[in-house]
Amino acid sequence: MNGQEEWHNSPIGVFDSGVGGLTVAREIMRQLPNERIVYFGDTARVPYGSKSKETVMKYSRQIVNFLMTQQVKAIVVACNTASAYALDELEHEVDIPIIGVVRPGAKAAMEATKNGKIGVIATEATINSGIYNRYIEKNDRSVKIIGKACPLFVPLVEEGLWEDPVTDEIARRYLTELIDSDIDTLILGCTHYPMIRSTVGRIMGKQVTLVNPAYETARELKDMLLEKGLESEHRPGLGTELYRFFVSDAADKFQRFANSILTYGILSAKVINIDEF
Amino acid sequence: MNGQEEWHNSPIGVFDSGVGGLTVAREIMRQLPNERIVYFGDTARVPYGSKSKETVMKYSRQIVNFLMTQQVKAIVVACNTASAYALDELEHEVDIPIIGVVRPGAKAAMEATKNGKIGVIATEATINSGIYNRYIEKNDRSVKIIGKACPLFVPLVEEGLWEDPVTDEIARRYLTELIDSDIDTLILGCTHYPMIRSTVGRIMGKQVTLVNPAYETARELKDMLLEKGLESEHRPGLGTELYRFFVSDAADKFQRFANSILTYGILSAKVINIDEF
Repeated sequence: MNGQEEWHNSPIGVFDSGVGGLTVAREIMRQLPNERIVYFGDTARVPYGSKSKETVMKYSRQIVNFLMTQQVKAIVVACNTASAYALDELEHEVDIPIIGVVRPGAKAAMEATKNGKIGVIATEATINSGIYNRYIEKNDRSVKIIGKACPLFVPLVEEGLWEDPVTDEIARRYLTELIDSDIDTLILGCTHYPMIRSTVGRIMGKQVTLVNPAYETARELKDMLLEKGLESEHRPGLGTELYRFFVSDAADKFQRFANSILTYGILSAKVINIDEF
Repeated sequence: MNGQEEWHNSPIGVFDSGVGGLTVAREIMRQLPNERIVYFGDTARVPYGSKSKETVMKYSRQIVNFLMTQQVKAIVVACNTASAYALDELEHEVDIPIIGVVRPGAKAAMEATKNGKIGVIATEATINSGIYNRYIEKNDRSVKIIGKACPLFVPLVEEGLWEDPVTDEIARRYLTELIDSDIDTLILGCTHYPMIRSTVGRIMGKQVTLVNPAYETARELKDMLLEKGLESEHRPGLGTELYRFFVSDAADKFQRFANSILTYGILSAKVINIDEF
């Protein structure tokens, strides 16, 4: 094998503030079954959604430094807050491709909308950052964006209440103003939200297209790898570790949640001291 | 003024992983109106409730180091998780009095119970640490403790749903097994919970005594200051800053929450880089 071939077989680095980004990793596993993945969940410092831009940038930079030590060939920022706050700067700092979840989600929403009214539900930080608005308005000033922060969705998902009257009630409260504003497309702007996709879909009604940035991001990653000739051409052989998981704290809890959403069980997640990177 | 008098007038250091400890600060303000307070909320690294013992110890040590730079005369660990995981070691590391919220709460519960069955509601970490059990069993092996983790209470309180049908429903689910186990005393083992005290009280019924460790901690602090001759004898004069607030991130959100629970509005909270301590 020459160096180029080895590079093909290098893993994709995927990171998130915690477990949410596993929905993105799951889509990559589905759409790109030949690719190895190194996942990092910043479970010691979760959530990013309520932290400042400076803090999120600092943390993201440390994680990228760590992923580079794992010889990743590309990085997916599987966290809306980190994509919103840190992606632009990170792109200038690393020499491998790096993609976030915001642009693929925003692009898909712009393709889906017919009446030009797009809703975004996300954490407070993602909504306050206005990142979806900025991206969409840059490309089409006629589109109207209605953002709504839904702070209780993440704890409800982590408590396992994916189908539950309480989640229904909270979702109804959060989503009322989006229904009233006549959107025809809704971006699930937080990586936890695909787990309550059917609740959100039922409340919004069939006339609203739900956009799942996790799915769109895996698609964009696939296109990018093909375009740059970086795709792994065959599934790694037996004995090769396909997926590796690292966390900054409390691996047990991470593993429990991972096992509830991934098809493949996770054997172990390794705790590292992310402050050192 | 000699050195001894100056030391009397030094502030009390109070810290928590975030905003929750403000319920403890509030009790100190009520019961000890002459005391100055330096409050630190670790808003960059909140929540502690899902973090490991090692991480919580490391963070607590950094905060104590910071508070020592503020010439505090005593420290209150206004966080159940930090009290559970770090207090024992911290007591050996600093030469000023340091008290947590667990022991005062446990003591009050032991005094209150008549049938020897005490419930504890708290975060997962506090329940898993078994700290209330250890303290109570050490003093009275005949008492039975029933612990219950209530992970959604903190986000519900922070979302302002103090009196709300959703909080009622979630509380009913969490509390059913405590009602069934016939406890007559319930410790509100997380500093956020005093905000939903009336909901919890209504569901548990009048026969159950609620113990608020914030109140008990302020009482223990008062006794301790008197005993050691450390109490401030008169209210600091005009021009003296009575209460100072520091956070590790996002001061705006902290301030909003603080203003919703404190009688005195907070003029400002200063952001410091806690990693440096």
